[in-house]
Amino acid sequence: MADSSSNPPPQDQQADAPAGPSKSELKKRAKQEEKERKAAEKAARQEELAQQQAAAEVDFASENYGALPLNQSQSRPGRTRDQISTFSGRAGESVLFRARVHTSRAQGNKMCFLNLRQRTESVQGLLIVTPEKVSKQMVKWTASVAAESIVLVEGVLEKVQEPIKSASVSDVEVHISKVYLISGIEGRLPFSVDDANRPESDVQAADAQFNRVLLETRLNNRVIDLRTQTNQAIFKLQGAIGDLFRDYLSANGFLEIHSPKMQGAATESGASVFKVSYFKGSAFLAQSPQLAKQMAIAADFERVYEIGPVFRAEDSNTHRHLTEFMGLDLEMTIEEHYHEVMEMLDGLFLSIFRGLREKYKKEIEVIGKQFPAEEFKWREGPEGTLKLTFKDAVDLLVEDGVPREDLDDINTENEKRLGRIIKAKHDIDYYIIDKFPMALRPFYTMPDPEDPTLSNSYDFFMRGEEILSGAQRIHDPALLCEKMRSKGVDPDSMKPYVDAFRMGCAPHGGGGIGLERVLMLFLKLNNIRRASLFPRDPKRLEP
Amino acid sequence: MADSSSNPPPQDQQADAPAGPSKSELKKRAKQEEKERKAAEKAARQEELAQQQAAAEVDFASENYGALPLNQSQSRPGRTRDQISTFSGRAGESVLFRARVHTSRAQGNKMCFLNLRQRTESVQGLLIVTPEKVSKQMVKWTASVAAESIVLVEGVLEKVQEPIKSASVSDVEVHISKVYLISGIEGRLPFSVDDANRPESDVQAADAQFNRVLLETRLNNRVIDLRTQTNQAIFKLQGAIGDLFRDYLSANGFLEIHSPKMQGAATESGASVFKVSYFKGSAFLAQSPQLAKQMAIAADFERVYEIGPVFRAEDSNTHRHLTEFMGLDLEMTIEEHYHEVMEMLDGLFLSIFRGLREKYKKEIEVIGKQFPAEEFKWREGPEGTLKLTFKDAVDLLVEDGVPREDLDDINTENEKRLGRIIKAKHDIDYYIIDKFPMALRPFYTMPDPEDPTLSNSYDFFMRGEEILSGAQRIHDPALLCEKMRSKGVDPDSMKPYVDAFRMGCAPHGGGGIGLERVLMLFLKLNNIRRASLFPRDPKRLEP
Repeated sequence: MADSSSNPPPQDQQADAPAGPSKSELKKRAKQEEKERKAAEKAARQEELAQQQAAAEVDFASENYGALPLNQSQSRPGRTRDQISTFSGRAGESVLFRARVHTSRAQGNKMCFLNLRQRTESVQGLLIVTPEKVSKQMVKWTASVAAESIVLVEGVLEKVQEPIKSASVSDVEVHISKVYLISGIEGRLPFSVDDANRPESDVQAADAQFNRVLLETRLNNRVIDLRTQTNQAIFKLQGAIGDLFRDYLSANGFLEIHSPKMQGAATESGASVFKVSYFKGSAFLAQSPQLAKQMAIAADFERVYEIGPVFRAEDSNTHRHLTEFMGLDLEMTIEEHYHEVMEMLDGLFLSIFRGLREKYKKEIEVIGKQFPAEEFKWREGPEGTLKLTFKDAVDLLVEDGVPREDLDDINTENEKRLGRIIKAKHDIDYYIIDKFPMALRPFYTMPDPEDPTLSNSYDFFMRGEEILSGAQRIHDPALLCEKMRSKGVDPDSMKPYVDAFRMGCAPHGGGGIGLERVLMLFLKLNNIRRASLFPRDPKRLEP
Repeated sequence: MADSSSNPPPQDQQADAPAGPSKSELKKRAKQEEKERKAAEKAARQEELAQQQAAAEVDFASENYGALPLNQSQSRPGRTRDQISTFSGRAGESVLFRARVHTSRAQGNKMCFLNLRQRTESVQGLLIVTPEKVSKQMVKWTASVAAESIVLVEGVLEKVQEPIKSASVSDVEVHISKVYLISGIEGRLPFSVDDANRPESDVQAADAQFNRVLLETRLNNRVIDLRTQTNQAIFKLQGAIGDLFRDYLSANGFLEIHSPKMQGAATESGASVFKVSYFKGSAFLAQSPQLAKQMAIAADFERVYEIGPVFRAEDSNTHRHLTEFMGLDLEMTIEEHYHEVMEMLDGLFLSIFRGLREKYKKEIEVIGKQFPAEEFKWREGPEGTLKLTFKDAVDLLVEDGVPREDLDDINTENEKRLGRIIKAKHDIDYYIIDKFPMALRPFYTMPDPEDPTLSNSYDFFMRGEEILSGAQRIHDPALLCEKMRSKGVDPDSMKPYVDAFRMGCAPHGGGGIGLERVLMLFLKLNNIRRASLFPRDPKRLEP
């Protein structure tokens, strides 16, 4: 405390002056001083912390614990770092590895247990006071390292009597001889990674016992949330779906293309397009690579695919809508019939489903612990995937009690109901609906040759939700212009697109898949935001 | 001509009426009538064309030439279509295939030669009047089919005496028995695919003889331009670079991520960011996935890559700038030294160069015919890629006569000069410059541990132009905030980004590659627009 008598506050001096400051002026000044005092305190505290850290920074070569100086690539001794995933069965070996401190727990003042984590793998670390090797101070310091700090650890793997349940490596633990802090934590974690990784059922069953981490909190602190075993596995699967998509299409002669996301005109459907300030004019964000991929067909690329962001300016905050998501798009020429495309897409999905089940069993299990789900089912064998016409689908719903007059379109609710009907009848989660009414499809959709009220178009479904929409497209410029006009689109507003067909174009069709929807529905994550690294919706642009 | 006496023009009737219309009114009416007359004529012409077409539409099964009805997937006989690429050595076999008419040439009224094209492959087709098989009318009709129309052709492959030079298949030609029009041409082609595929040198040498197709004309009619052998090969290589990039990184434990392109704040450098209307607020298009990929590292993904569009609102119409291009980005944790990242990137480039040279020799040759270039060279073997420091580079330029005081930064001109110096000295087109001055790099760049005016950053070059920029990043939040402030960026404006490091983050580094630049420079295409399917620059948003 400052001695107030020897250093009177400035207000007192001011009070003697003629025409002294007003009450509000005084209040303002007091506030200002409080602010300055706090800033000074904060600076002092930071200074102190920095000094502490500098004092704690150790020489990796000569000391066996403490904070390392900031890695600015000072040296490169070339010592290999180990992966926890390789530790099992290696009792007796020395290891050096970087890991997160998942938890640390001191036992008395002579022992400290660490749970050390690398992504989905973890191992138990043990530190025991040992003369000339591990000091009391070292144990104390280690126990004080905050959860989620990153450390560099050296030790020997030792066999344990009882399998360790709290780590992914259960047969050995690390007897630590050296431990250094690489990166610490500033402030408090908004939630623990353990809490974020807890099964939803546990949390619901025992709200008082565990901290429930709400989706909103997770997304606000997505960097911590993504560290859970579940999320590490989810995004490994997201990458896998992309790989499986590309592998299948490459093997079938498709070429990857990249089309521009900024377009000169608000096309397809003007209402749901984001507008961009483009120098002195405007551009619009593509709501799909539809026009570009069709133009690639007119340019003779024959079979193309694209993986890229698509943008939808729809103000809907549902569990299945994002304003930006990853489109897996393809387009191919047709020789005889658009079912060539539908079958290619079906083959693609089967290849993705099989690939996930065969190669990512472990990850699917990990995710299932937090988001329990019945295993995703599809039909294999000569019978193949269940294909219904739109009319068949309507009939099934009517049979189930939905009034036929409500079924000009099948809304989201009825889509889900249809999913349940098909699940009950066939025990499958994946099917195709073909031959949608022309009125429900965009202008570029090819009408059915026999019934102009129908179209050569299809949607694919997983667990009762749409994951792909596609069709044969109109490659004839006269018919295209006619359909554009009938849907209120001026062909001149999309001249480069229409011109592509005037220059000769093969019959073609394709489809667009929502990557996050496939991931969400395969795993039953229940909210599409969980399937997006940094999701965007009408209310979220960060992080 | 209409008989004017029996059907007097309406003006005459009007002239008899009292208070007749004014001169300008008459003029207006005349204009209106002219417009209506033209519209009626056009409609009549279109009607006539449609009738002609309908009349010409044939039954595939019973007639042997003519326009097929519009393919609306009427039937699916399941007849396999052949690929021209398989024709060589198959004399005597029957074939059925879809192709573009590249050229057609009647010889007298009994014979017609076609050059039939599928992407980069072509074959000669021959039609000769033969009793009961090929009529005079059929030859005449075929000769009249416009270039770039799409036809379905049936015939027999026959051995030729002299190798055919004008087609990629030189040992056989197709003796055509059936030919049908699948898709015709409306209007006139802006240029021929042959002209567009001509070597630049031919065009310069003999301007009068050949039609030169200017880049602007090509880009305005990109769908035709893309049909050239050269462009088919260029975009095959573009796809290949993406594949090679992914294969190398997958094999090295990298995970593919997708980060949002719409961001809440105009970050990194506010000046060159596109602004988006986002519901009632604003968003900004990401000028790189920098922030997201670093946050993915803080989220423990360890090694990540992304292939996605990046947006630059720079009003520069140079040969090497686009407002939207494909970024090949990666980020990885560092154990000891940032050269781990630099070496990973170097290994990646060598793998891409080797892959292109080994697997795409034919395509590189095709492109070389239109854009002649010295073969791209790099250094293999134990010596490895040439690595200079920024200081070394400056010294080389000074030695070459550039005043040292001009070299605080190395501008584009001096970059190219350096490329020529290195080419002359080492005969290589690929090298790395390391240790750039801190002043030239963004705030997130890690300073050198010994000299704070230098940084742990590098650029990679091909033929004297930068194709990659990268560095070790600052993973310490205090140092990061300090550097942000020193570059005039308020850390609070990027709170989610800074927070990621407050929650503990491993040392890391990475880099961003411009896909189109790599493609342009490997092939020496001289303009980046040629390496982009549908390029975007400050003046171009279409097609």
